[in-house]
Amino acid sequence: MRIAVDAMGGDYAPELIINGAIQAVKEFNLDVVLVGDKAAIEKLLKKNQYSGSHIEIFPSSEVIEMDEPPALSVRRKRDSSIVRGIELVKRNEADAFFSAGNTGAVACAATLSLGLLTGIERPGIAIIVPNLKNISLIIDVGANIDPKPSHLVQYGIMADVYSRYILNKTNPSIGLLNIGEEESKGTDFMKETHALFEQSRLNFIGNVEGKDLFSGKCDCIVCDGFVGNVALKVSESLAETLMIFLKREIMSNFMGKLGAMFLRQSLKRIKKKVDYAEYGGAPLLGINGVVMIGHGRSNSKAVKNAIRFAAEEVERKVNDKILEGMKKI
Amino acid sequence: MRIAVDAMGGDYAPELIINGAIQAVKEFNLDVVLVGDKAAIEKLLKKNQYSGSHIEIFPSSEVIEMDEPPALSVRRKRDSSIVRGIELVKRNEADAFFSAGNTGAVACAATLSLGLLTGIERPGIAIIVPNLKNISLIIDVGANIDPKPSHLVQYGIMADVYSRYILNKTNPSIGLLNIGEEESKGTDFMKETHALFEQSRLNFIGNVEGKDLFSGKCDCIVCDGFVGNVALKVSESLAETLMIFLKREIMSNFMGKLGAMFLRQSLKRIKKKVDYAEYGGAPLLGINGVVMIGHGRSNSKAVKNAIRFAAEEVERKVNDKILEGMKKI
Repeated sequence: MRIAVDAMGGDYAPELIINGAIQAVKEFNLDVVLVGDKAAIEKLLKKNQYSGSHIEIFPSSEVIEMDEPPALSVRRKRDSSIVRGIELVKRNEADAFFSAGNTGAVACAATLSLGLLTGIERPGIAIIVPNLKNISLIIDVGANIDPKPSHLVQYGIMADVYSRYILNKTNPSIGLLNIGEEESKGTDFMKETHALFEQSRLNFIGNVEGKDLFSGKCDCIVCDGFVGNVALKVSESLAETLMIFLKREIMSNFMGKLGAMFLRQSLKRIKKKVDYAEYGGAPLLGINGVVMIGHGRSNSKAVKNAIRFAAEEVERKVNDKILEGMKKI
Repeated sequence: MRIAVDAMGGDYAPELIINGAIQAVKEFNLDVVLVGDKAAIEKLLKKNQYSGSHIEIFPSSEVIEMDEPPALSVRRKRDSSIVRGIELVKRNEADAFFSAGNTGAVACAATLSLGLLTGIERPGIAIIVPNLKNISLIIDVGANIDPKPSHLVQYGIMADVYSRYILNKTNPSIGLLNIGEEESKGTDFMKETHALFEQSRLNFIGNVEGKDLFSGKCDCIVCDGFVGNVALKVSESLAETLMIFLKREIMSNFMGKLGAMFLRQSLKRIKKKVDYAEYGGAPLLGINGVVMIGHGRSNSKAVKNAIRFAAEEVERKVNDKILEGMKKI
């Protein structure tokens, strides 16, 4: 198993990307190809005293920055770590690709170079979030901001497969993110999508609401990429804001400081529960190849776990299962 | 000042609605007309030992339930507390109306009966949320789920006015909720809306992202009602989920319980900060009349504060200011 990793993408690249890759090859039975600035990577491998044979370097001279327009940058920067990394998968020199860099550029390069699975019209980004009962999968959180109803049903199929084979769920339930539960709710687009889901063979439980992202009402939540992206960023921001409120309160008085001392372990466990780094990355599903996208702020733990999940997606043949699922719609 | 209050709407109606109304007339210089089941209201007023002259009852025999289809129920239930309450405003027998009942029905009855302010094409529901610096206003969170770009600019004008005259902000800044900050981001709808805002006289700061709902980056956030509704419900749900995680952790071990004792005051202050009951209701803006919508779960404090904010909206002539704002676009 060989995972290509964009060494240059993410807020803490290349340092924490390389640390994460080193941890991954030490903990899991796989190899990593670091794509990027050869000299910088070599220096960091040396600094981390890694001299094993499980990490290789594939040199690339360009970097697509976080705020560059995806399609244009992919076309112009042919020697970027993202374009080169995807090409390794295309040529079967790597089994999967992970990047914590420009999400749009990764999605664009992957779609152009690897293509989509037969029957899939658009790729979708799926994320795993903790809920009151367990975990749920949300798709799409930003790859496709102007979808058709059929795209959302395809996301449902991909969510079903990913939940079964990676998250080990039996007959995962699928909800459609809407503004009310009744099937008459929402825009015409939502009603049309609801009807298509009703006709599918998926375990469709109907519309769910924003509150159900964390309630555990269903295993998978399907939404359009615009709404999903807003919901994801709202959630991240709110969790951080509440933590800042808590810190401010705690530090403002003696009792608070005392209480926080006793609560340290509890708070740590909650942080672990809601930490995106536990899953590390978000699979870009629908691509004819395995591509994992990391949070811009990915730390070494997130990188390590994203590499692990990418490897599992390859091992468990998620794409073959999606193709089978498409045949049975 | 006379505020009509739907005594029958909300999860805790009529009990907590009536408690809130009693608190409001005791604390503020205003009268309340309770609309609903006369016998039930009289019984609760008696139970609460209220015998003053600041509360009147306007009897109505029907109730629009939370899950009834708005337009249909408003048409059929002519003697419902929502329809009757709105009519009191229409006939100038009340200055404003508050309901914690079926939001869609309130919006529908208000639009049909009172009409819209000149130049406003759709009403919008605005909510106030705490952020890291202060508070911000988000509009629309569900009245208009399939808006045109012009509707969003009108929401911007209403948000500007409400922030100035109710939230006491000087030259409030307005952001458009999108999936990235660059003006090239988002759907064609978002780009068109962005261009319209650029041409307006509003203090438009451009696109903002989901993370900015709580960052305090701008005073007002404008969004389409579908996205706003999802964002609102996601936020509520996440805040509750994190609190449940915290409680579970705390109760699972001795150190946690001990820490929580010391932290009780800090947690109370945070709860107060993020408690929607502090503002009580969400103004339905754009209506030719003052209408305030409460959370289904409104408690007596929320009802009391919603009545206060409705009275302030009347006193500070928010609708006149919106009409002036519309002339200056």
